[in-house]
Amino acid sequence: MTDVLKNIYLDHAATTALSEKAFQAMQPYLREQFGNPGGIYSYGVQAKKAVNRSRKKIAALLEAQANEIYFTSGGTEADNWAVLGTVTTALRKRMMESQAGTCGESIHVITSSFEHHAVLECMRWLENWGVEVTYLQPTREGYITPLQLEKAIRPNTLLVSVMMVNNEIGTIQQVKDLAKVAHTYGVVFHTDAVQAVGHIPVSVQELQVDMLSAGAHKFGGPKGIGFLYLRQGIQTDIFMHGGGQERGRRAGTENVAGIVGMAAAMEDAVSKIEYQDLNALCEKSSLSILRNGFWKDISETIEGVEVNGSMGARMPGNLNVLIRGVDSEALLLHLNHEGICASGGSACTSSASDASHVLRAIGRSEEEAKQSIRFTLGEENTREELTYAVKKLADAVAHLRKLR
Amino acid sequence: MTDVLKNIYLDHAATTALSEKAFQAMQPYLREQFGNPGGIYSYGVQAKKAVNRSRKKIAALLEAQANEIYFTSGGTEADNWAVLGTVTTALRKRMMESQAGTCGESIHVITSSFEHHAVLECMRWLENWGVEVTYLQPTREGYITPLQLEKAIRPNTLLVSVMMVNNEIGTIQQVKDLAKVAHTYGVVFHTDAVQAVGHIPVSVQELQVDMLSAGAHKFGGPKGIGFLYLRQGIQTDIFMHGGGQERGRRAGTENVAGIVGMAAAMEDAVSKIEYQDLNALCEKSSLSILRNGFWKDISETIEGVEVNGSMGARMPGNLNVLIRGVDSEALLLHLNHEGICASGGSACTSSASDASHVLRAIGRSEEEAKQSIRFTLGEENTREELTYAVKKLADAVAHLRKLR
Repeated sequence: MTDVLKNIYLDHAATTALSEKAFQAMQPYLREQFGNPGGIYSYGVQAKKAVNRSRKKIAALLEAQANEIYFTSGGTEADNWAVLGTVTTALRKRMMESQAGTCGESIHVITSSFEHHAVLECMRWLENWGVEVTYLQPTREGYITPLQLEKAIRPNTLLVSVMMVNNEIGTIQQVKDLAKVAHTYGVVFHTDAVQAVGHIPVSVQELQVDMLSAGAHKFGGPKGIGFLYLRQGIQTDIFMHGGGQERGRRAGTENVAGIVGMAAAMEDAVSKIEYQDLNALCEKSSLSILRNGFWKDISETIEGVEVNGSMGARMPGNLNVLIRGVDSEALLLHLNHEGICASGGSACTSSASDASHVLRAIGRSEEEAKQSIRFTLGEENTREELTYAVKKLADAVAHLRKLR
Repeated sequence: MTDVLKNIYLDHAATTALSEKAFQAMQPYLREQFGNPGGIYSYGVQAKKAVNRSRKKIAALLEAQANEIYFTSGGTEADNWAVLGTVTTALRKRMMESQAGTCGESIHVITSSFEHHAVLECMRWLENWGVEVTYLQPTREGYITPLQLEKAIRPNTLLVSVMMVNNEIGTIQQVKDLAKVAHTYGVVFHTDAVQAVGHIPVSVQELQVDMLSAGAHKFGGPKGIGFLYLRQGIQTDIFMHGGGQERGRRAGTENVAGIVGMAAAMEDAVSKIEYQDLNALCEKSSLSILRNGFWKDISETIEGVEVNGSMGARMPGNLNVLIRGVDSEALLLHLNHEGICASGGSACTSSASDASHVLRAIGRSEEEAKQSIRFTLGEENTREELTYAVKKLADAVAHLRKLR
């Protein structure tokens, strides 16, 4: 094998390499332009201008207003802010009422059972505060239906949070329709779009969501930076308290280089989206063609394989495969030995031995979930790499099945 | 004037330039080593190893254990986590008790009135939840005394949070003595050490604090990264919920390059601390000699000037001066025109027109606070630069006083 084939990165949903444009854009702000954007002097003003240029750029790419973009430390913080910020104000009101002896109204929120942990763990935390949470079950194909959401809404529902793209199986939700249902009942709608931004068209005008989270390192930006889109007029509590940064709503000295890098990466990533029409993107983009060829090869070479989730409205680069009789952790180690990077479940929890909650949610058994592996392709992957990967995958599967 | 004198940065407490060592250490993790530390493959493992090497390095510099260091997005998040994480668990218990009809015990916390906003604003938020907060008033010199703290402790006091070094006037608290008082009464002690770490000796063994916050960009590290030291066994709620990063206590994909850069910067900064004895450092270090010469020149050249806070236990590079009859904002703009960067109040709030809460806390009037300016020197500043700065300062002061 040539060296080119020695490192085949097929885990783009876990993180992406920093794009050259993002890297170049960051350099001045890591060095000479080091000022604190809060400073009144030129160093500070230049840093502040860079932050605001980045904010405008990101807003434009989302068809949002610049003052609706708030920088955070990543997708996780954006999700925490959206969920907790929206609920804690009501929770506090309820607590004060309880103490005053009047019975505070109970609080209800809706999410799906296959959200990213950044949303799910916020929900678990809120449950400990007495908040009622409905976890919508996705279909076996990996979707949440508007009707399902509508049925779950109650008079005291405060928030709906459903992810735009699932991080494990890549299914793309009809966020626009879900947001419309929520709004019909006057409920605030948040979407975790961490896996969507920079990969598929995302317009807040089109989607009409109230809040949307993103993290830069999923689209060629640096780690440690992300943003929350917060529609003007949406009331949400402060999550990070302190100095008056981000129009008084998110404290902490701005990560200038990170912000500039994120904007450059997003501009670059969005410009490379091949089709503005989602169906065309899912069917005809180079990544989906590459992924479909990869799946064809796998299914023709290895017996007892099935795709997890629908192959319809799904991220072009995502392939999540159940390989019967093969423990995914052992398989991943074999693949790594051959220079192939993939994951079981999400990267964030790949060290945990729990079966993927996403695969369980779409109806896979615990055993099936533990026999599933996720490949997420990126633009630098080639047909040649994937041919090599299928060969190595088939060898490893044969070897592991023999051991049973 | 030569070009060298054209940019004189005297605002090191606002932010510092990234050190060469930090910059170099970060480069591989911005490029080829881009893996998600959660990945099971080599890219991921290498990233995870880099994170853990950095954690060990930082722990060693603080005389802490590696598993007591938790990475955050900066000093603000570390402060928020320390304060809110400690109180919300008790708050939730109280809320559940209230709802059950039993009268939950009230919660009391103690802080100082001249903390950074990252702590103060958390306290204001907690007050809205019915938490009782005592704000200790510093002396005119800028200190909180152990006796004062002892008097404020109540049977229901849950937390004491007092900063190690004040960000505006640079006074250094006797944190060890304050922590001792808190512990005598079984109260958890947190210190915001954002202005201390990398500049003066900080050992958690010596200080015996339970929690300590720091932010990398204050000591030559990148923006957007910091840490919370959390003594083993200290119970504190999770602040950032999600994937199981940081031993399940702080979610979000690790900012690998930021973490590596922070550790390199901290190692570099700590190695440059001239004296391990604090008195010697405050009196004899090159920075304190430079600062004292700067103050001597200012006081001999300009009339009606006074130092804010004690010149005793104070950060070597800090000079906060009241210049009577001169609006600091106008003065800062004049200085900026001459290439001199300084600040009024803290950089985080320099855009706000409110008088500094720190200067008000040490007994300055609103007018006096608005006539005060902060210079914070760094190792690259020279005597020549400061001589030039004094001249330009004197010119600007004379000009502005004439306008009145």
